[in-house]
Formats: sequence, structure tokens, C-alpha cells
Amino acid sequence: MKIQLLSIVLFLCGCAAAIGQTSSPGSRDVPARTIPVPKSVSPQMQKLIAAPLASTWNVIPKTADEWKVQVQAGAAAIVATLPALRKELHVRVEPRTIDGVKAYMVTPENVPPENRNRLLVHVHGGCYVSNPGEAGTSEAIYMAGFGRFKIISVDYRTPPDHPYPAALDDAMTVWKAAVKMADPKNMAIFGSSAGGALTLSMILRAKQEHLPLPAAIAPGTPMSDLANTGDSFRTNAMLDNVLVAPDASCDKRAALYANGHDLRDPMLSPLYGDMRGFPPAILTTGTRDLLLSNTVRVHRKLRQAGVEAVLQVYEGQSHAQYARDVSEPETREAFEEIAHFLDQHLGK
Amino acid sequence: MKIQLLSIVLFLCGCAAAIGQTSSPGSRDVPARTIPVPKSVSPQMQKLIAAPLASTWNVIPKTADEWKVQVQAGAAAIVATLPALRKELHVRVEPRTIDGVKAYMVTPENVPPENRNRLLVHVHGGCYVSNPGEAGTSEAIYMAGFGRFKIISVDYRTPPDHPYPAALDDAMTVWKAAVKMADPKNMAIFGSSAGGALTLSMILRAKQEHLPLPAAIAPGTPMSDLANTGDSFRTNAMLDNVLVAPDASCDKRAALYANGHDLRDPMLSPLYGDMRGFPPAILTTGTRDLLLSNTVRVHRKLRQAGVEAVLQVYEGQSHAQYARDVSEPETREAFEEIAHFLDQHLGK
Repeated sequence: MKIQLLSIVLFLCGCAAAIGQTSSPGSRDVPARTIPVPKSVSPQMQKLIAAPLASTWNVIPKTADEWKVQVQAGAAAIVATLPALRKELHVRVEPRTIDGVKAYMVTPENVPPENRNRLLVHVHGGCYVSNPGEAGTSEAIYMAGFGRFKIISVDYRTPPDHPYPAALDDAMTVWKAAVKMADPKNMAIFGSSAGGALTLSMILRAKQEHLPLPAAIAPGTPMSDLANTGDSFRTNAMLDNVLVAPDASCDKRAALYANGHDLRDPMLSPLYGDMRGFPPAILTTGTRDLLLSNTVRVHRKLRQAGVEAVLQVYEGQSHAQYARDVSEPETREAFEEIAHFLDQHLGK
Repeated sequence: MKIQLLSIVLFLCGCAAAIGQTSSPGSRDVPARTIPVPKSVSPQMQKLIAAPLASTWNVIPKTADEWKVQVQAGAAAIVATLPALRKELHVRVEPRTIDGVKAYMVTPENVPPENRNRLLVHVHGGCYVSNPGEAGTSEAIYMAGFGRFKIISVDYRTPPDHPYPAALDDAMTVWKAAVKMADPKNMAIFGSSAGGALTLSMILRAKQEHLPLPAAIAPGTPMSDLANTGDSFRTNAMLDNVLVAPDASCDKRAALYANGHDLRDPMLSPLYGDMRGFPPAILTTGTRDLLLSNTVRVHRKLRQAGVEAVLQVYEGQSHAQYARDVSEPETREAFEEIAHFLDQHLGK
């Protein structure tokens, strides 16, 4: 049994070592390792960390129709969990069309007085392709539940039918409408992963178009660099059990969105944008996150641009695992940190 | 050739996978990898990242005398670099004895008006054993140079001759004297690695003894958990080229300091202490740092205790590499961030 297992390990390491890894000067040779679940996180988070690699991390559909089947299956699985989540967090979700763009109004049962005139805009994650429709609302439900803010969650158009700049265009349409519903000084934009990148790109675009900016932003583990230059794309590969590795499903989905555009265009990879004049920002990531470098590099770039920006890094978490399980103390902690930051920066 | 290389890789991964690694439920099998130097940092930082593993990372002397020889050789190498560093940063260093404890006054040539009544206390790193004498002043020179603060750097007694609590006792003696030289509201304590842990332990001890607290602290990549429970002790092992791996030289030095005491005693591992009432804190680490988890866990614990605490994580850096090379833009950036934070929190 042991010998059989060792053979499998040998085979797996051999394959991985052979795939696209060149030994340039100063490269670090890191031996194969078996890394236990850390005891330094909650029991609920230990379960998420102990979960096997995401089942579709490297399952790449060959046609647009195959993509749609995969995306719909993923979305249906999430949607099935939402009634319980909404009930647990006392949050109401209603579809709405805003200037032709699909969206959801996500509202806590009780909005506290300090949040009555505040409004958040949410852009969901899913590597630009996944989580269409109601599936995109889960993070907004967490924020409405833990932070008790009123939220518009943008159900932006997605590839393969609608590549860049459809998602950003839709988000901007909603932003332009939203700043008429509330005072931008009382508003924030937030989202994780592709939603984190869209949050940042929306600010670049709002600057470009001389639109009002929100009072704060909360980009979570943003896909801020589609050129994948950050160190954690290598160091956390096969350790992150959500995105798992670069050049896998998430990157293929992002490529469908980019649709041949330059991956370093700041509207696709906001890390390459000019961040001067950005509103105060709170960034969230985890130590095992494949996008740890993406997140800390945005943080540094914001600070270098003189922007008030704070960074939250959670122990042992892979990509966006702070928004996966309502029973985790770490989920409450992450959203309460963001809510606290927004409360400090938003007008009333 | 390719087949031969693959066989070697297979052999290496197999060995590593077989060495002392138990596969508990949910453990992650990470294959052997060759990780390039990231291009996402400055050329100077790329050089530090490309450097081979620290030469003594796992060279463990067998006797007290052998330890002293190794420590003196390391200290002499650092001391040789200090005249140029002091000259470059326009900083003066003078030995001083404070209530029987050896220390250095570290002073910028020009102290700006806002810093005239401010005073920092510095506790150096070196896993509690290394960097005695002038070798311990380098981080204080960076801070005096980039932040233009007046600093007392504590040259605390070290093992093997002087185990716990000698270092902490010496630091507290200096702290008690320092609060008579300046108003504690105008003071901060800072230090990295063992110095980061001592910074935190000094606050625990000051709370216990009802002494005045400083207005802010700056623990860099603190050795906050000698029980090594954090995830990055495993995930960043062999990737960090400074400390390299747990159970190696740094841990053996820490064991000389602990000298049989409980490694989870908060005075040795401040992560286990009560952080309520701590002064505002700025924490610094890097994505390849073996003590990344130690740092983010202290950040979370401070935030959970309601303390204002900010986190700086630098791309690609191993343990305390932000304080290694005066020509790195990242060194200036790290110390200017800390200085900015202190300027916001210290009285004048």
C-alpha cells in the first residue's frame, strides 16, 4: 500500500516538475511536501482547507456550449445554498433591471440608522465567466448580513457570449445609475476575485470618465494581473485548493473575457493602472491564496500612490475562502473588518 | 538527457516526500517545484531573493563555546558593513550603559522639529542569540536614517550564557529608564524577528507591571509563536532563504533562550498573550517569510482585541529581507511606512 502510494506521488511530482518549469539563475528548488491542515484556524476553516482540490480546477470545456453547461452546473449548485444563507443572515434578494443591466437588490431585514443613506455596489467573482444570475449574490448576502448595508449586486454579462468590456460596461452603467440613488460620499464598491479586479477597474474608468468616485472600496483577492507575474502564482500553486494553479480553468475563463486584448491593459489588469486619487481601500486575502501576490502588490501600489489602504491576510486560506461558509468565525471576521472600514469612511 | 533529468527529479521528490512527513487527513501533497525569482520586485530585491540559502541555516554548534564562535563570526561580518551604512544614512551610533544594561544611542545627523521630543526603543533580532554588540544596531540605523528618529538600541544579554528572561529583563530596564528621558506618548518600541517578539512581550510585561505604554509599536515579522503552529512554517519551508525551515538554526537558538521554559508562555510566545489595551501597531512581513503566519496571526489577534493594527506584506521577501540592503527601494519603502505610522500616532 505504502509503495503504491509512493509510486503515485513519484508520478505526480515527476509530471508537475516537468510541466513548464525552467531553472533560471536564483530559482529555488523546493522539494515535494505533504502539508498538514494548520491547527491555527477555526475547526470550520480547517474543513475548508482539508477539502480536495476544486473538482473543475483544470477541466477546460472545448466549446462555448460546453462552457455554458459547466457554468450552469456550478451556478445551480450555489443557488441551491442561497435560501438557507439568506434566512440565516436575514437578507432579502430581489431582481432588478437598472438601465438595461441585470442586477439584484440585496437588503438586510434591519438596516441600522447609520446605514439608511448608504449604498454599496457589488461586483461578483467567478473568473469573469462563472456565477451568472442569482449565483453571483452570495458575497453580497454575506456583506448585507454581517455589515447590514443595502447593496446592488451587478449581474453583468459574461463570456463566451459577452467578452470584455461587457462586464465593466455593465458595472459602469449600474454605477452611473447608483450615484443618482445615493450620495457617492455614502457609497462603496466591493467584490472578490474577478469582482476585486472589476472594483479597481471601475475606479480607473470612473477617473477616466470624470464620474464621482465612491468613498471607499473593498477589493478582495483581486485578479489584478492577468499576466500572472506575481510570485504566489508559483509559490502557492497546488497549495491553494480553490484556484489551484495558474494556466488552469480560471485563467482560461479570464482569457475568454480578455478575448485577445492585451492582458496588461489596466482595464483588464488594474495593477498596471494609475492608482493616484483612489478612494480608501481595504484588501483581503489568505496566506495560501494563489492571488496573495496580486493582493499585496495592489496594496503596495495604492500606498505608493498615497492612498489610504489596509490589508487583511487570513491564516491558511486559499482564494476567497473567507466568503465560503457562514458558520466560519473567519467569514464573520472578514466581513465585519470590511464593514468597520466602510463605516469609518462612508458619510451617513 | 530529459529522461535522466526526470529520473533525478523523481528521485528527489520521492526522498522529500518520504522524509518525516506524515499524511494526516486533508494534508495537501505539493509536488517538487523550481520557483523562479519574481520579476515583480526591484532588481536589488531580485538579487536577495536569488541568493542561496543562508550558509548557517542548519549548522548547529554542539557546545556553548562553538555557539559563541559562530555568533561572533556572524556579528563581525555585519559590523564590517556598518560604517558605510551609517555614512550613507547620516546616522551616528554611540555606546551607552543604561542602569547597567548595554545599549547604543542611534541618532540621525538632522533630527526634524517634529521628532525632537520623540524617542524610539529598538530591540534587535537574531533568534535571541545572534547580533550582540554593535551588530544589533543595523535595523536602528535604517530607522534613524529613513525615519529620522532618535533611538536607543538595547544590546541585551544573550544565550548560551544568559537565557530567558535576561533579554526581556534588559529591555524592560531600558524601557523604565527611557520613559524618564521622554514622554511615553512620544515614544515607540520596534524590532524585527526576535526583536518583534520582544517588542510584543515588552508590552505584555509593561501591562503586567503597570508601566507606561508607548504610543505605538512596530513588530517586524515577530517570532511570536515558538511552538511553530502557523501554516507558513510548512508552506514557506525551503522557500524562505533566510530562516529556511523550522527546527533548524533559528529554532535551536530560540531553544537556548527558552532554556526549558514552556514555549507557549506569552513572555516567550506573545501570540498566546492578552493583547487588549495594546498600543497601535504596524506589522511587516513578506510573502516568502517563514514567519508570515506568525505575523498575520498577531495582526488578527490585535484586531480581535480591538487594537488599531496595520499589516505590510512585501512581495517575494523572505524573513526580514526589508532590512538587508540600503539600496533596495523596498527597504526605504518599509521603513518610511513604519515612520509614517509612528508619525501619525506619536505625540510631539
